[in-house]
Amino acid sequence: MRDDPTTREEDWERRTELPLFYASLLFIAGYAVRVLASRSEHLWRDAAGIVVLLTWLCFIGDYAVRLVLSGDRPLRFVRRHWLDSLIVLLPTLRPLRMVKVHDAVQARRERPRRGLYQRVITYAGLSAVLLGFSGALGVYHHEHRDPRSSIRTFWDAVWWVCETLTTVGYGDVAPVTPAGRVIAIGLMVCGLALLGAVTGSFSSWLIQVFRREDEEEPPGNRGSPGAP
Amino acid sequence: MRDDPTTREEDWERRTELPLFYASLLFIAGYAVRVLASRSEHLWRDAAGIVVLLTWLCFIGDYAVRLVLSGDRPLRFVRRHWLDSLIVLLPTLRPLRMVKVHDAVQARRERPRRGLYQRVITYAGLSAVLLGFSGALGVYHHEHRDPRSSIRTFWDAVWWVCETLTTVGYGDVAPVTPAGRVIAIGLMVCGLALLGAVTGSFSSWLIQVFRREDEEEPPGNRGSPGAP
Amino acid sequence: MRDDPTTREEDWERRTELPLFYASLLFIAGYAVRVLASRSEHLWRDAAGIVVLLTWLCFIGDYAVRLVLSGDRPLRFVRRHWLDSLIVLLPTLRPLRMVKVHDAVQARRERPRRGLYQRVITYAGLSAVLLGFSGALGVYHHEHRDPRSSIRTFWDAVWWVCETLTTVGYGDVAPVTPAGRVIAIGLMVCGLALLGAVTGSFSSWLIQVFRREDEEEPPGNRGSPGAP
Amino acid sequence: MRDDPTTREEDWERRTELPLFYASLLFIAGYAVRVLASRSEHLWRDAAGIVVLLTWLCFIGDYAVRLVLSGDRPLRFVRRHWLDSLIVLLPTLRPLRMVKVHDAVQARRERPRRGLYQRVITYAGLSAVLLGFSGALGVYHHEHRDPRSSIRTFWDAVWWVCETLTTVGYGDVAPVTPAGRVIAIGLMVCGLALLGAVTGSFSSWLIQVFRREDEEEPPGNRGSPGAP
Repeated sequence: MRDDPTTREEDWERRTELPLFYASLLFIAGYAVRVLASRSEHLWRDAAGIVVLLTWLCFIGDYAVRLVLSGDRPLRFVRRHWLDSLIVLLPTLRPLRMVKVHDAVQARRERPRRGLYQRVITYAGLSAVLLGFSGALGVYHHEHRDPRSSIRTFWDAVWWVCETLTTVGYGDVAPVTPAGRVIAIGLMVCGLALLGAVTGSFSSWLIQVFRREDEEEPPGNRGSPGAP
Repeated sequence: MRDDPTTREEDWERRTELPLFYASLLFIAGYAVRVLASRSEHLWRDAAGIVVLLTWLCFIGDYAVRLVLSGDRPLRFVRRHWLDSLIVLLPTLRPLRMVKVHDAVQARRERPRRGLYQRVITYAGLSAVLLGFSGALGVYHHEHRDPRSSIRTFWDAVWWVCETLTTVGYGDVAPVTPAGRVIAIGLMVCGLALLGAVTGSFSSWLIQVFRREDEEEPPGNRGSPGAP
Repeated sequence: MRDDPTTREEDWERRTELPLFYASLLFIAGYAVRVLASRSEHLWRDAAGIVVLLTWLCFIGDYAVRLVLSGDRPLRFVRRHWLDSLIVLLPTLRPLRMVKVHDAVQARRERPRRGLYQRVITYAGLSAVLLGFSGALGVYHHEHRDPRSSIRTFWDAVWWVCETLTTVGYGDVAPVTPAGRVIAIGLMVCGLALLGAVTGSFSSWLIQVFRREDEEEPPGNRGSPGAP
Repeated sequence: MRDDPTTREEDWERRTELPLFYASLLFIAGYAVRVLASRSEHLWRDAAGIVVLLTWLCFIGDYAVRLVLSGDRPLRFVRRHWLDSLIVLLPTLRPLRMVKVHDAVQARRERPRRGLYQRVITYAGLSAVLLGFSGALGVYHHEHRDPRSSIRTFWDAVWWVCETLTTVGYGDVAPVTPAGRVIAIGLMVCGLALLGAVTGSFSSWLIQVFRREDEEEPPGNRGSPGAP
């Protein structure tokens, strides 16, 4: 039933997904060096700037190729792939494509897979970590020179991201600039959904483990099996 | 079994639901202009006031028609439709009727529907956004002239709504007037339930996507299918 | 299989549950008057004190009768009914017995029941409101005379309870006395579990509503039914 | 199908799990005395230090024995048992092994088990309490001498842990030292997942209780059974 022929668009997507994922790691690393390097380290800052530009060009090229392969009119393509369009504008959001990356990784491996909940936890958790790191970079970038801001070092920004994504929100550090707050709002909304998936899957996994024990034990090492 | 004949009340409800939803958007827009326009912009403020009044009259008229069509005694009708009665008094709560709007929208379209979880996310998320916008307007309206308040601009109020609905709650901005706090309490309770539905549905959707891949892959592009 | 004969203990419990629930409302009302009445209103304070004492005696009497009826040794009874033992010491926790009250209410009614999730929402929500009100009273009682405290009026305490139970936690008001913090910890733990049940049930109910629509519509008012 | 023979590694694990759990309680108690004893109480501090060292040696010994019994190369063993490797370095994380402890406890008892959700609540809740207590000790240890810190007493640290694990986060007390914040981040991530499991299981349990009543009542004490 389900053997719809793999279209050229899907084929391209499958082949490029993993390289582009590594490119997005490179993008985030380049952005990190660009933001965190002190003003005097010209060489590092320039190299990082070039890495960011090159990887961004890769993403734009990939988007263009897929637009052509799909055969759609541009507007329709943008509407159908709104998440991808957003990611081309803001490549730090690329971790949100985790499900596709997961698919590409699985297709290459021959190893038996891990359990369903463990994979959801791994991928949603990894996406949340990458998004959180990008968010910390962005907020630090916009906040650390503002005199009213309480986010003075990158470590402050990381601490802020952790207390935000877990929704603890002490308020000892919080963004005050409009750009910082916009990043914060995006981070809260995406991060909450991802961490909700992590928590929910962990809960389901734990219940599954306890339930499995119930089923395994009766024929096990006890002489008197309890009621099923 | 389930083919109970559509009563006149249900028929009226189905026909008016979508126009009234647009009216509620108009109401919120009018209220926004009324609250946000500076004191000197008399023309805008007056126009907005008229829009608010007219849309409110529509809601009251709709409520009256449904009361008559139902054939119930007024008190019983109020008790049975307590949410609608509340909405007539406070039309900014209208987004809470999303399920009915969804029903009305679906009945008109012929397109195949999207998945269950995606619809819950869309409708609960949209309701939360509309409620949050109304809440930001209300809190700004009551707070921005109070000398103790930390909510000075509408942007402060929007930032406050975002950190409240995600339950982060830094506390850098928080309502201090009684009216602002009452709105805040209502927003917390409704918003939490709605966002809990969004998070929960996203989690379920993600697990569903990962599970579906498991089922699809065996006959797929790998030569050696793993254990099912 | 499940028709175990109703023991005398269960019979007693079923008959007394509802009167004791009203007694617990009376207890909370009495405690509220006692705490909130100003120092000069001797008459009200004395009357409230008597109501509190009398209802407390009812709870102790009920506990004693059940201890005798059960035929257990006291220590075993305390361990088996640890929640009830805690409630006798701290009658403001009585709303936690909601499930039993629900049982008693249902046994008396002949009306068709509401849906499962709606009942869970109603009972968990009601318990959370009652616990929150008791918590606000207790925290106000211990905090409002402490010079360091930010909880000066009962309305401050109510606002604090709302931002605590929803886990927003701005921190504009927070308990500082040891007694206030102990009450706060108890409230957080119980309230979170109850509100988690409310949110989870609301989410499940919403998904159920959307799913039911899917099933109902095909034979409905559309000529071209979609794929099931 | 599932009767794979118990290997020597599993046998060792089953036998040592419970003693090692008690050893971990001893470890936490020793660490508590070490941290909380005032500087002048040399005797207590020294005794506690010895207890901590001895129990830690037990954990290292157990890890070594299991490494040998498994027959794996060290690197592979570390990767496969990454949680255990982490626990050897940081024995306060030992409560995270709760599922194994639960298994060991159940294997010894003959009593009928409690319900699934109750066990998940008990074990996840207990783990959260133990982790929280360790976290409070660690944060107090690193914060209470820092002049900027708001955590001055152990009671402050306990209050901080409670408002952190419930994600309320007033911000009246919050860690400021790097070490304190690292502990806080670890606590937030682990604690949230555990408490999410507690809340989720409580919600499922409540729904189960209400559903069971529905099924039990029809043949029960009412003459006129309602619709099923």
